[in-house]
Amino acid sequence: MRDVYLVGAGQSDFGAFPQETYRSLFAAAYEDALDSVAGDLGAADVDEAFVGNLGVGGRQIGLAGPAVTEHVGLDGTPTTRIENACAAGGSAIRHGVQAIRSGMADVVLAGGVEVMTDLSGDVTRYWLGVSGETEWERLSGTTFAGVYAQMASAHMAEHGTTREQLSHVAVKNHRHGSMNPHAQLGFECSLEDAENAPVVADPLTLYHCCPTTDGAAVAFLASEDVVDEFADHRVRVAGSGAGTAPVGLFERDTYTSIPASRDAAEMAYEEAGVGPGDLDFAEVHDCFAIAELLAYGDLGFCDPGEAGEFVASGATELDGDVAVNTSGGLKSKGHPIGATGVGQAVEAFEQLTGHAGDRQVEGARYGLAHNVGGSGGAATVHIFERDDGGVST
Amino acid sequence: MRDVYLVGAGQSDFGAFPQETYRSLFAAAYEDALDSVAGDLGAADVDEAFVGNLGVGGRQIGLAGPAVTEHVGLDGTPTTRIENACAAGGSAIRHGVQAIRSGMADVVLAGGVEVMTDLSGDVTRYWLGVSGETEWERLSGTTFAGVYAQMASAHMAEHGTTREQLSHVAVKNHRHGSMNPHAQLGFECSLEDAENAPVVADPLTLYHCCPTTDGAAVAFLASEDVVDEFADHRVRVAGSGAGTAPVGLFERDTYTSIPASRDAAEMAYEEAGVGPGDLDFAEVHDCFAIAELLAYGDLGFCDPGEAGEFVASGATELDGDVAVNTSGGLKSKGHPIGATGVGQAVEAFEQLTGHAGDRQVEGARYGLAHNVGGSGGAATVHIFERDDGGVST
Repeated sequence: MRDVYLVGAGQSDFGAFPQETYRSLFAAAYEDALDSVAGDLGAADVDEAFVGNLGVGGRQIGLAGPAVTEHVGLDGTPTTRIENACAAGGSAIRHGVQAIRSGMADVVLAGGVEVMTDLSGDVTRYWLGVSGETEWERLSGTTFAGVYAQMASAHMAEHGTTREQLSHVAVKNHRHGSMNPHAQLGFECSLEDAENAPVVADPLTLYHCCPTTDGAAVAFLASEDVVDEFADHRVRVAGSGAGTAPVGLFERDTYTSIPASRDAAEMAYEEAGVGPGDLDFAEVHDCFAIAELLAYGDLGFCDPGEAGEFVASGATELDGDVAVNTSGGLKSKGHPIGATGVGQAVEAFEQLTGHAGDRQVEGARYGLAHNVGGSGGAATVHIFERDDGGVST
Repeated sequence: MRDVYLVGAGQSDFGAFPQETYRSLFAAAYEDALDSVAGDLGAADVDEAFVGNLGVGGRQIGLAGPAVTEHVGLDGTPTTRIENACAAGGSAIRHGVQAIRSGMADVVLAGGVEVMTDLSGDVTRYWLGVSGETEWERLSGTTFAGVYAQMASAHMAEHGTTREQLSHVAVKNHRHGSMNPHAQLGFECSLEDAENAPVVADPLTLYHCCPTTDGAAVAFLASEDVVDEFADHRVRVAGSGAGTAPVGLFERDTYTSIPASRDAAEMAYEEAGVGPGDLDFAEVHDCFAIAELLAYGDLGFCDPGEAGEFVASGATELDGDVAVNTSGGLKSKGHPIGATGVGQAVEAFEQLTGHAGDRQVEGARYGLAHNVGGSGGAATVHIFERDDGGVST
């Protein structure tokens, strides 16, 4: 298989931008990604494009992929919209990797975009709810926060996880996000803030839930045959994994693990020939604080039952064993659904090229990106490697 | 690049099925596709799945891909929903080909599903309209039939094409569809029926427009390494091409050609090493009669200006130079959006394995499938080859 490299990645600010459109957000990400490429990459170099997006609503139900690539001057480039709910961005990267490995493309754009904040809260809940299981979960009135609250309750019952431990996820990710100029909620919060916030779905408080977000992200992937035209440092896609599981949480055997994440991680680690102990950092899918704890177990960072203690110990802080969500994660950086998985690759690119500023993980060589669709109906895991031996700091 | 083969393909009936769901339709197609495989293929063999779908509406906005593969027992298989409006199915096949050529999969399911007839006419028009360009075309009140009517008017003005020639498309495709047990409108129509039908959008009458359709289709693709486990005859994906163009018709330089089709065809012909003169049959995207005439020009079947005379001459009948839409096409077989492109592969598989019954093209060796999204914002072209020398009849 041909090697595939990440040669550029950028994003719009994440936040609430009533003055922007899905096209203008995508264009901002595209320009930021172009700026990040060391070599001279232009529209004519892009052989194919994949655009993660849950739906731009009445703006453009069909062909939202070509509608955004056309807008940035990629007229004529084969483009496909990729949808796997909140894992659309990670799926776009995976299929971009496949397109290059197939030999059918040398340079691929893997992007994502979402506009969410122009919907009222009720509509957003409805819209997000339908990425869970529709016929039973939604019709029973279960919101997305409600589904994850059930997982949190199960984790507490099974493993003795506490609300305070959940709050540690929020505190850490806000601390990281406060160092990210693109973050939607780029402020720090205290353990007390997180614990005493209003309950959204017991046991999850407001600080245990990510915001709704407008934003876009774009990554450029290149084959081993052309990488040196565009990159000073080789950031390799060392592993790509994907999995699915029943879309409805109630149809699964476990509430304290996301089997699709587990399968995707196993596939990615095997392909990369590394294990969790080799990782310097990881962007994991913390749509709710409990999701980050589930990820620790599913990705092998610690024993699943010890996830709460693991975060409280500081092991996933910037200077910990494996720095988790150095970007701020979905919690602080924001969660523009189709863009989120690509935004994780933006952080990986910045970390592995030494451009993460105050968030820089020293000597970063291996990073992982973990993207979950719905409550685990789909998941992707990618492992990125700085293959000249890591960032020197 | 590894060779990729079509080792099975099947479909549900196409039609209006209020008693069916998107999942049950997909399951019917899956079973039909499994039945078509010569060897013993089961869920455990499928490495990855791509599901074309414009949208199953409130049923499952996100994760409709995993929701259908889960339903047929592919729990755990990496699955992604592919959306490129009416070209979603062709795009699913293309990305399935890439997945296999990449070496990351040996067997891929490329499928598609759509449920449309449970919407009222107004909602369907709205919903389809948003696969055209939304901000200007839709807001000006232009329907999808209206967009293609503008292309028809331009073709008439530029090339002297007549309404009678458009009607020949309908007559031919209904004749072919009357031999297809899966067709939605499996009856013959006369030239007078087509010409005297109510006008939908001048110059297009009802018989110049495809119906709205519920249905699903599934194709199984396999690598050269495993093809002989599953196939008696080698039906190779000889070429895959894709293109895009501005989503809005008004943004393009021409109304009498679909540039995305032209680009996709050029790419597919080049990869396959064949030209239009080598084709025995073609499934082309006849959402409206004018679309089939545009395809003749864009795919190189005849001079673009002679498309009207070409169909009237009988050159695209079952026994003509290149049999076009032997399945009945979108016009008679039906057009369940996300499934349409995969349905074209079903016809190609049946033709190239000698199972097309009364519609069989004698000695078929090369067939093409042409799938268009919107009014040409995206298009795919695939060329299939029976690579042991053609069907013996």
